[in-house]
This record gives sequence, structure tokens and C-alpha cells, in this order.
Amino acid sequence: MLDMNSSVRISASFDAGNIIIQDASDSRDIQLAIRNDNNSDFFQWFHYRVQGAAGNVLRMRLTNAGKAAYVDGWPDYQAVASYDRQFWFRVPTCYENGELIIEHEPEQNSVYYAYFAPYSYERHLDLIGWAQQSELVELFDLGQTLDGHDMTLLRVGTPGEGKKNVWMTARQHPGETMAEWYVEGFLNVLLDSDDAQAKELLREVVFWVVPNMNPDGSVRGHLRTNAAGANLNREWATPSMERSPEVLLVREKMKEVGVDLLLDIHGDEALPVNFIAGQEGVPTVSAEVLAAETQFQRDYMAVNPDFQMERGYEPDQFGDEAMTVGANWVGDYFKCPSMTIEMPFKDYDLRPDAVQGWSPERSVKLGETVLFPIARWLNS
Amino acid sequence: MLDMNSSVRISASFDAGNIIIQDASDSRDIQLAIRNDNNSDFFQWFHYRVQGAAGNVLRMRLTNAGKAAYVDGWPDYQAVASYDRQFWFRVPTCYENGELIIEHEPEQNSVYYAYFAPYSYERHLDLIGWAQQSELVELFDLGQTLDGHDMTLLRVGTPGEGKKNVWMTARQHPGETMAEWYVEGFLNVLLDSDDAQAKELLREVVFWVVPNMNPDGSVRGHLRTNAAGANLNREWATPSMERSPEVLLVREKMKEVGVDLLLDIHGDEALPVNFIAGQEGVPTVSAEVLAAETQFQRDYMAVNPDFQMERGYEPDQFGDEAMTVGANWVGDYFKCPSMTIEMPFKDYDLRPDAVQGWSPERSVKLGETVLFPIARWLNS
Amino acid sequence: MLDMNSSVRISASFDAGNIIIQDASDSRDIQLAIRNDNNSDFFQWFHYRVQGAAGNVLRMRLTNAGKAAYVDGWPDYQAVASYDRQFWFRVPTCYENGELIIEHEPEQNSVYYAYFAPYSYERHLDLIGWAQQSELVELFDLGQTLDGHDMTLLRVGTPGEGKKNVWMTARQHPGETMAEWYVEGFLNVLLDSDDAQAKELLREVVFWVVPNMNPDGSVRGHLRTNAAGANLNREWATPSMERSPEVLLVREKMKEVGVDLLLDIHGDEALPVNFIAGQEGVPTVSAEVLAAETQFQRDYMAVNPDFQMERGYEPDQFGDEAMTVGANWVGDYFKCPSMTIEMPFKDYDLRPDAVQGWSPERSVKLGETVLFPIARWLNS
Amino acid sequence: MLDMNSSVRISASFDAGNIIIQDASDSRDIQLAIRNDNNSDFFQWFHYRVQGAAGNVLRMRLTNAGKAAYVDGWPDYQAVASYDRQFWFRVPTCYENGELIIEHEPEQNSVYYAYFAPYSYERHLDLIGWAQQSELVELFDLGQTLDGHDMTLLRVGTPGEGKKNVWMTARQHPGETMAEWYVEGFLNVLLDSDDAQAKELLREVVFWVVPNMNPDGSVRGHLRTNAAGANLNREWATPSMERSPEVLLVREKMKEVGVDLLLDIHGDEALPVNFIAGQEGVPTVSAEVLAAETQFQRDYMAVNPDFQMERGYEPDQFGDEAMTVGANWVGDYFKCPSMTIEMPFKDYDLRPDAVQGWSPERSVKLGETVLFPIARWLNS
Repeated sequence: MLDMNSSVRISASFDAGNIIIQDASDSRDIQLAIRNDNNSDFFQWFHYRVQGAAGNVLRMRLTNAGKAAYVDGWPDYQAVASYDRQFWFRVPTCYENGELIIEHEPEQNSVYYAYFAPYSYERHLDLIGWAQQSELVELFDLGQTLDGHDMTLLRVGTPGEGKKNVWMTARQHPGETMAEWYVEGFLNVLLDSDDAQAKELLREVVFWVVPNMNPDGSVRGHLRTNAAGANLNREWATPSMERSPEVLLVREKMKEVGVDLLLDIHGDEALPVNFIAGQEGVPTVSAEVLAAETQFQRDYMAVNPDFQMERGYEPDQFGDEAMTVGANWVGDYFKCPSMTIEMPFKDYDLRPDAVQGWSPERSVKLGETVLFPIARWLNS
Repeated sequence: MLDMNSSVRISASFDAGNIIIQDASDSRDIQLAIRNDNNSDFFQWFHYRVQGAAGNVLRMRLTNAGKAAYVDGWPDYQAVASYDRQFWFRVPTCYENGELIIEHEPEQNSVYYAYFAPYSYERHLDLIGWAQQSELVELFDLGQTLDGHDMTLLRVGTPGEGKKNVWMTARQHPGETMAEWYVEGFLNVLLDSDDAQAKELLREVVFWVVPNMNPDGSVRGHLRTNAAGANLNREWATPSMERSPEVLLVREKMKEVGVDLLLDIHGDEALPVNFIAGQEGVPTVSAEVLAAETQFQRDYMAVNPDFQMERGYEPDQFGDEAMTVGANWVGDYFKCPSMTIEMPFKDYDLRPDAVQGWSPERSVKLGETVLFPIARWLNS
Repeated sequence: MLDMNSSVRISASFDAGNIIIQDASDSRDIQLAIRNDNNSDFFQWFHYRVQGAAGNVLRMRLTNAGKAAYVDGWPDYQAVASYDRQFWFRVPTCYENGELIIEHEPEQNSVYYAYFAPYSYERHLDLIGWAQQSELVELFDLGQTLDGHDMTLLRVGTPGEGKKNVWMTARQHPGETMAEWYVEGFLNVLLDSDDAQAKELLREVVFWVVPNMNPDGSVRGHLRTNAAGANLNREWATPSMERSPEVLLVREKMKEVGVDLLLDIHGDEALPVNFIAGQEGVPTVSAEVLAAETQFQRDYMAVNPDFQMERGYEPDQFGDEAMTVGANWVGDYFKCPSMTIEMPFKDYDLRPDAVQGWSPERSVKLGETVLFPIARWLNS
Repeated sequence: MLDMNSSVRISASFDAGNIIIQDASDSRDIQLAIRNDNNSDFFQWFHYRVQGAAGNVLRMRLTNAGKAAYVDGWPDYQAVASYDRQFWFRVPTCYENGELIIEHEPEQNSVYYAYFAPYSYERHLDLIGWAQQSELVELFDLGQTLDGHDMTLLRVGTPGEGKKNVWMTARQHPGETMAEWYVEGFLNVLLDSDDAQAKELLREVVFWVVPNMNPDGSVRGHLRTNAAGANLNREWATPSMERSPEVLLVREKMKEVGVDLLLDIHGDEALPVNFIAGQEGVPTVSAEVLAAETQFQRDYMAVNPDFQMERGYEPDQFGDEAMTVGANWVGDYFKCPSMTIEMPFKDYDLRPDAVQGWSPERSVKLGETVLFPIARWLNS
């Protein structure tokens, strides 16, 4: 593994690191490949570090990009980079002949590149540790994943007669890191004792939050699956401890306490917008629930113009698998609004940001503002 | 002025300090009086420091409270205190026989008491200095007050064809410090480049913000008036450089650039709620404008439950003086929605906070969330 | 006072503001004068704000600079400026024909100029409020100044048998603001429960700290004197409540508790270095005390190379007034080391900083590191 | 690995996690064992999380403590715990019958226990990322470890004719996390542009800093060794790419640039003090070097009383292995002062802290203050 001859060295042995080095001998033509998710054909998440390149133009070809899970994700996509691992900016990227080509002249000797700003397991544990300090929070340990990580559920608010149970789950697909940034924003506001919307909601609602549904995939640098290669968002009909304990453990708890509303947080590779996928593809869904979901989206758009309703999935997006999808299964089982919130890997094209594109910072904001459509739903 | 015999010493020689010491020889029966606003009969704002009392029970009588500007302000009111001048908490207070009686056993040797958490001129200048750093902001110097303070107007956003001009003014009544905390919150969000609501608004709106309409009164520790004893919110019909340059200078600029919406930020001594006074008392107001103002309030309440619509002023609150009031004069002159936003000195009784009551922190939040009803007004 | 015709407007109505506007009609030739300290001939401190000049070259002449208290202070001196009142940088300045000429093209519409980075009374009160939170600190109220400001003494540490009493006084000369920045640094370290040097010292020492000896002069924007025009550092032989209560009150407390070491913190207009003036000019001083003072300086220089010993005052610097100077009077009365620590208004020429010159940040550092020579003195 | 029956669940699948669960069925008698370092008999570092125990008294027995690497480390040792992973406090611990017994009633549902406050690889990468931003820093990539982690060297300062090369290495023993906290403190000061000591040193010195000599062992939760089971601090005579690339890579760079002073940062299991082991055990060491090392310690003690010289290792501490120890090998090869700095796992008994014991905060301080003895050595 030691390659001492090349002046540029590439590594990925860190949380969510993922790259295969094919040829790094010429910094003007570095050839890389994205490693498959374990036990799976999916791949799209990449995260690696280049050292020794300050002042040199790097041309990096991800040679197997054309066979990635979502090739529609590459056109108009710009990779993110960081020197300090705090601030992530976009770098020139193009998709040509089945390859994703990143060209960048780093200013410093150590630079990280990734599909989106990472959200590490350490930060996840810090988030849990921070939230736990709040008097509003009770931490539930649901059990372990296949890799031995902890499945954590946070309850926010005090259970009581007639209170609604609102659930938020995030990162079923671990490479969709914006989902956990979103949860961070949501918790920021929900635990803020000076926030009137939060205090008002907590009079009538108990929140159940799973900040990371897929820690194994997160640590391993997967795009879509857990350690066993299971796409958790297709496991809700028949989860098992062998293949998808993450889903089974959460589903059990949902059955125990009930669900009145579910928001399942994701990132979408292709569409350059934030949008919601509701239960349009669920045969048994009621008009009432569909109307509530539509109103939810209108309210969300009103409070945060980074949300929009024009573009989104087709109702048949999930085909035969529709009822294995988390939000659909939950909506069907509990007969309640249950929506998938999608944020872009690409820049948000209605309000583009040349420097950062869609960012952790704006994902946080989107999570902070979701209390408003929840409150509107509650009051309707 | 030197009183070296008493173990407890009271002082008020600092920004917005205001108290008259009648007898401080017995810490169990300290007699104080609130000093009049300069050249005026108004008084209600107090702000003083007690030293040397750690561990002793202080009983402080504000003996002329019964003759204050708003005696309805005293029942159910609790004074605020602070050791570090950052965190302000409520202390036991009652109103009896025309006196406001504060009883408190301070834990430390230096403690400040005030009518509400102060917002100093130094902090005001810091706010201006901070805001000025934003590329969105242009600072306008309107001229000087009678005491030689600077009247500052901040323009946020770029003027352009067809853009609306939204104005915010605060602290016409200098003792209503919550108004400048509110502006701080408003600017926090408006200048946040990751806030989609702010960015969206700035496409169509130019904001004109006067964080402090009455710096002279603020520094002097007044409740209602400027250095000349003028109640600025009764000067809008006929302001003059001699008596009310603050109003004249702002009014001139309003005439120059136009007003499509005005929010004038205040505190109310009596009512324990946040509310808005619109132009119900303006004879010439159109039904359309009144409807817009009502909708504004509904939208505000939706996004921030610390706002309510049940309680507020009677339409004839200002009587014959109605057209001298800033929001009324502006609404009438520019034929636009023009509202006075009022926050309580008392605790907000719908969502009470035993420790802080209505606070700077929540005033900031109220200011942060006003972008939503503004956006709704714009889009309607 | 209202000057609405000029596009550039100059003001100084704020804490420590001090300027006289002679002619501001032409921004390329602005004529200003420094106002005398009240009841005094001293003047040198200036602090004013210019508005409306973004993008214009300002040429500002301080026309009476040649008659200032220390004309040796002007050669090689650069004035400081700030947009946000937090970060102060140097601007091109020269001294010609008895005038101090500042040339600067501000980038923003509001810019402040000063003799050195100001330290406001509000910040002073915040410092006291912060320090008071420490379990180590007991706040003593010494009484009032002529302007009614509070004279505050902080005791750090617990008195006990055989403990030494170390005093620090600062800003006898109010325009020497670096002195209070220094105290801030000193308290930062002294109250840091993880600092071993501080904890060790507090086993054997009680510290008595007066962060601001001259609040009246500080607020008024004086260089040297208090409200009565008294140069406090020439009042120690015969202080009085009428003319110099600040000194009398502190001196009484010193007599009560004793002094084993005094550090009196100052700024020097002329010398571009940090240095200490000991008791070389005190006829009665013992060789032992002089040796201790010399060793103190050596130790200070070892731990902080921003301190030096080559340059400083001549032994006869104070002439006949020697025994009226604080450090001298204290040293003589208590027969102990008693030193005046001087920092430059100019840049520190041994380690120049082209952007900031000698700065608040480095004054803080100098204060943080003084624990070392104190500890060495204690152990010797 | 899934144990859903027990109300208390223990896990260690995170950075530096290390525990074997023997029996966790009874929270009053939890039996655990410390896992060996990989390919090694050493063990002593533990780090695990307990969930579901809020309000219950936990009694945790580390049953194999009596066979740990340093049984002298257990008497008078208190384990550390944290809820939020930021603040680590000591919990009641005793060593009886060859077992380390921790008794604690956690206040929250998720609590971490460890041998000392962990310093994660994520934090390590953040430290590197932060340091790299400084203009003073050049990052050198030395190559990869056996587990594929990056070996990073920071150069601080600009090489130049006649400049000294001062090296700092830390965490050869990865469980001695205090060593990297120490480096954090050292870099804090060294990169502070307002620190005169740092600026002065950088005129004559180039610093070479390896914040973590053993990232593999750090991530794996080892006490002493790297992934291959090598105790790096016994590898300096004959390092190899197969067994100890970390040492070989650093040693090569040392030979290339030279060493005038080495500080190798460690933690000691047994002694409850900070101390330095110099080259007393090196047969070839000169009297001059030994004197320099002794003076270094005196100066360190003067500036930071958390350092002491009374207690430490015997000269023959390392026996036959003496010349395989990093500091000894370097000292011998480069004929320069070369010292091992040791901090305690236990509380520092000369200045005990009942809450935290010896802590990350004080390790940082110790690192911040080492510039002083370095400066004294340089000037001698």
C-alpha cells in the first residue's frame, strides 16, 4: 500500500473514505474508481484525500462513474472539496465518456474530495451526546447493527394522552449525508427553549428522531446499503435481524408507540432541487392523506423558498417495490402522512451558489424550518 | 454624591442608568424614585446598580411608581436583574399603594436592576459596525440628534426597478429596548447568506432599517422621549429640527425613496402579549390595507406562536393624536400597510417563562421570524 | 451641531469620543483639533467617527497636535482605525509642521479613528461582571468618582496568614487604554482554573486589582486627567476627595490590607517599546528592592520577548514630582517593589506589525504572561 | 452481537473503542475484559459506552486488569467518564484482587468510560486541517501506515541558514492520548501570531511536529503498539517498513533535516506527576547534553508548576532496550538533548483536581508552556 515514489499520494482510510487508486503516478491524469458498497453493486459515494499537490493542477478521472448507481447524477454535478474538513466548496467537474473528471489546483498540501460534505460517525455521536443534555430528550438504545454500531433513537418531548407521534428518520442511504445535517438543524430548533414554535409543538407532539438509520454504511463510505448490502429503503415490508436489523428495530418501536407523521430524510442524485415524495404511488392511500401531504409541501415552500413543488418523482418511481419503501410502508401501515424529503447532491438550480452549491449549511436551514409545516399539519 | 457609610451603595452613572436615591441607609427599606425623562413628565424606565449586598435581602421601593406614565404596567410586572449584564432574570416584584417594590437577595456584590434588559449605545454602534460588513448593506448617515448622536439608516439589498421598499424603525421610545433586540434578530436573518427566505425577499425588496430612532433618550435612560422631551411617536405630522430631528430626518428619507410597508417596533407596558396595532384608527385607511395588515398578523402568528391577535389596542387608542403616530402617518401618507409591533415588558402570559419572562432572546426570535409575514405580504 | 451640507460628517458623541471639528467641508483637507482634558491643559487622546467617506481619500489634519502633551509621541506614530469597532488597524499618519496628518481611504461608510484601540466603560463593566462570576473573586466597591462612576476593586484569592498582597492598578491615565486590555489578559489567566501558575500563586498571594483607576477620564475621552483635571499619577502624596477621590479611595484600601508588590499599568506616548519604570528615582529605595525590580524585569523578558530592558525612562524622569507618582509613593510607603509597566502607543519597533502595530491583542498577552515574573519574585 | 434482553447494553464500535463483554446481564455486576493490542500481549486502554443505565448504579469489573501491562497503574487510579464526549470527569474506581472496579450511577442513558479522555482520528485530521491554514505551516506527507492511515509531519517556520531543528513527536503509544492534547496546546501557541515567544523562537528555529506517531493503534484502541504489535518506542534502532514504518519514515526525515532537540510526548501509567526522562540511561551521552536537559526541566518547572523534577524514572528504566527508545536513539545519533515528556493517567497529586484529575485541559496548558524552556535552551 505504500507508494513512496509518487509526489502525490491518495488515501481514504478514514471515516466514510471510499476510493480505489488505479494510477496516481501522473498528477495530470490520476485514474480512480469508486468502490462498490459492500455485498452490493451500488456505488456512487466517493471520499478521498490527496496530499502533496499544493500548486499543481490535478486531473482526476473516476473511471467507473458511468456504471454508478445513478448516472443521471453526474451531468451538471460538481464535486466538493475541503482543506480544513469544515468548509466544503465545489470544484470544476465534468462528466464525459462515462467518466467523472475533477480538475482542481489545490492551494494546500492536504485536500479532501467527496461526493458531498461528509458527516462522520464521531460527529453523529457528538450530536447524540449534545442532544441528550436537553431535559426534553430521552435517549433510546434500539440495539446494534451488523457491524456493532449503536442504533439510537431520540425522543423529544413528554408522552401524554392524545399527543401525536411525529417521526423523523435520516440516512437510510448513508451517502446522503445532507440528511444528517438536516437533522442537526431540526434538533437545533426543537431543543431551543426560546423557540415558540418548538415549545408550542411540544405541547401536543412527541418527536421520535433517528439521526442515522445506517451507521454501518456511513462509516464504510457506502452510497446506498448497509454492511450486508441491503438497501434499507427497500426493506420495510420484510426486515430481518440478519439482513436489515436497522429497519426492523425502528419498525418495532414505531409499532409500539405509533406514527402520526413520518419524515424520512434523503438526498437525490439527479434532481437539482429540494422536493418531497409523498404516497402518490401507494394504492391504498386516502385522498385525505394525500391532501395533507400536498398542504405540507405548500407550507414548507412558504416558509423556506429553498423548497419547491414543481419537480419531483413520478408517482410510479418505485414500481413494484413501492411498498418496501420506508415512507410508503409507514404511511400504509399507520394510515398517516408519510413523506420522503429529498435534497440535491447538485447545486439547487433555483437559487444557485457558485461557491458551495447545495451545502451542509442550507441543509441545516431546511431542517430548522420544517417545524412550520409540521405545526400547520397539526393545526389542520 | 459620595456615601461611604452605607454598606449598600446604589449608582446609575452608566448608559441608560436612571434612578434617584432617596434613602439607601437601610437595605431592608431602600427608597428610590424614577427620574423624569428630560423636559418631560414621562417616567417609567429605571436602571441602577446595587453594590455590597451579596447575601442580604434587599427591599427596594420605587416610591413614585404610582405616578409613572403607565401605572397599568406595574400589576403582574417583575423587574429584571443581572450580575454579568448578559443574562437578565426576573426578581420578585409587587405593586402596592402606588409603589413598585422589588425584593431580592443578590448572590453577588454587584447587581443591576432594570425595567427591561438594556441595549446600550455601545452595542448599538457594534450592531451597525457588524451589519456594515455585509455586502448587502449600505450605511446612510442621516445627521445628528440634539445630543449629537448619529442617526443611522441601514439599507439592505440593492435598489432596482419595481422593487418594494420595506421600512423598519425601532426605539422611538427609548426605554422599549426589546425593540432593538428585535432588530438584531431581524438583521441576523436578513444578512444570513444561507437563509433562503432572506435571499428570496431581497430579489424584490429593499429594506430600510433604523435600529434606534432615539439614541439621545436611550443613552439618557428615558422611557418615552428624546433630549427635548418630545415623544417622537407623536411628532410625525409636524416634526422639526428643533424638537424632533430624529423623525424629520427619517421622514425626509422615506419621502425620497418611498414606503411600501412599515414595521415600527415597540414595547408595551401593560399588555402581557405581543401584538400589532394597525391602522384601524386611521380614518382614511382603505379596506385593502386593513385586510393586508390583518393577513400579516395571521401569517406572523402561524410562524411564531409568540405572536397573537386576540388582545391589542382599541382602534381609538391614540384619540386625536392618531395621525401624529409614526405608523399611522406613514400608512396614510404612502397608502400602504404600516404597523406598530408591540412586545411586553411583562412576561408573555400565554407561554410564561418563570426565570426570564419576556426576554431579549425571545425578542430576537420574534425579529428573526418576521420575514415570513413580509414574504407572504409580498406574494399576495 | 447639525451640518447637513457636507457629504462627510464627523462625530464624537460616544464613549471616549474626543475631537473638535474646525472645518470638514473638504474631505481632502479636514481640519480637526484635539479637545483639552476637562479643567486641564493636557490633550493627546482623540477618537472620532467619519461617515459618508467610503471610497474617498480622507486627509485629516489634527492642527493642534504640536501643542499636545507629548509631541515626542507623534514622530513614527500611526493612528488606528476600525470599521467594526472590534479590529483596529493602523493608517498612514505623519507629523509635519506641528500637525498630525492622517490620510486614509476608508472602504466603508462608517469608520472610527483613535489614538489607540478604545476600551469602553461598558466593556469595563462587562469585565467586572464576568470576573465577579469566579469563585476566586470578591468585588469591593470603593465609592464614587466625581462624575458618579463606580470605583471597583477586585480581590482574587482568599486572604490568609502570611499571604502576600499583590496589587495591580491600571488607567490612572485614561487615554492609555492598553492598560485595561492588559488587565483583561491578566484576569483571563488568573481566573483560569486549569492554569497551574495561577493556582500555585494563589496559594500564597492575594491579588488586588483595579481595572480602571480613572473611569471619569475614560468616559470623557481624556488623555491624562480625571474630571477635575487632576493627573492622578501625581496625586499619591496628597490625594483628596475633592480633587482625586480615585487615588484616595485606593490608597486607603492599600493602607488597610498592605502592599507587597504593585504593578501600575500605563502606556507611553514616545517610546516604541514595552518597559518598566522602577524606583530608581526614589531616594529612599533600598538596594534590595531595586534588585528585586531588576530581576522582575529579567524574568518578564524571558517569558515574553515583547518586553525589553534596554530602553526606558531616565531615573530622574519625574523630577520633583517623583514622590507623587503612584508606584513611587507605594514603594516608599510599603518598602516593596513597585513598578510602572509601560506599553507603546506606537508600534513595538523590535517586533513590528505592519497591520496593527502594538495592539490590544498583544497587550492582553503581556498581561497574561506577567504571572511568571510575579511567581519568580515570590519564590526568591 | 445483538443482546436485546439486557436493559443495559455495552458497545465499543467506535474510534478507539476497546472492551470485551463477559457478562452484562446484571448491571450491579458487569464483567468486562480489556482486549489485547493486536498481535501483542499489551493491554490497558479501555473505552466503551454503556446505554440504558440512567439512574442505576453500575458496578463494572475489568476482570483481567491484574494482567494489564502496568498493574502499578491501577492503585489510586480513577477512570474517566463523559456524557457528551467533550467533558470528561473521574468516577469512583478501585483496584482489588486483580480487578479494576468502576462504580458509577450515570445521570443519562448514554455514558462513555475510558482510561483517559480519547483523542479521535477525526479530531487528529481536524487538527492537521486547522494547522495547515497557517502561513507558518507546511504539511509533509511521510507515507502510509500498515492500516493505510496517513503519517503526517508539520513543519512550522521557514528553514534557513543556521536555524535549529526542534522536533516534537507524540503518541508513539496510542493509548497515551494526553500526548496529542499536549500537541494541540503547543500548536495553539506556536501558530498564534500575537505570541511574542513563538515569533521570537521562529526567527531561529524550525519546528517539526508529528502529532500522532501511531494512528493505527489510536484508531484500534491500543495502549502501546501499532497494527503489527510493535511497541514503536522500542523500534528506533532497527525500524522496518514491515513492522514499524511509522518510526522508519520519521527517522528518515530526521536524518534528512537534522535534530537539535527532540521532545517525545507520552503518558505514564504509574506515576501521578508530570516529569521528563532524559538521557541518563544513554552511555554515550555528554555531560553538556545532560546539563542542558536538566536546565530544560528547571525552566519548565518555573513557567508551569504542573511540571516537577522530584519524581521520575530511574536511569536504568529501559535496561537493555535503552537504545531502541526514540528519545535515546535520537539523542545518541544527533548528540543533542532529547527528552521524553510524561504526563499522568492518574490525577496529578501535587495539585489534585477532584472532578477531572489530570485532564485534556491541563495537558493542553502543559503543551502551551513548553515554548519557554525551549527558548531558554536556545538562548543558552
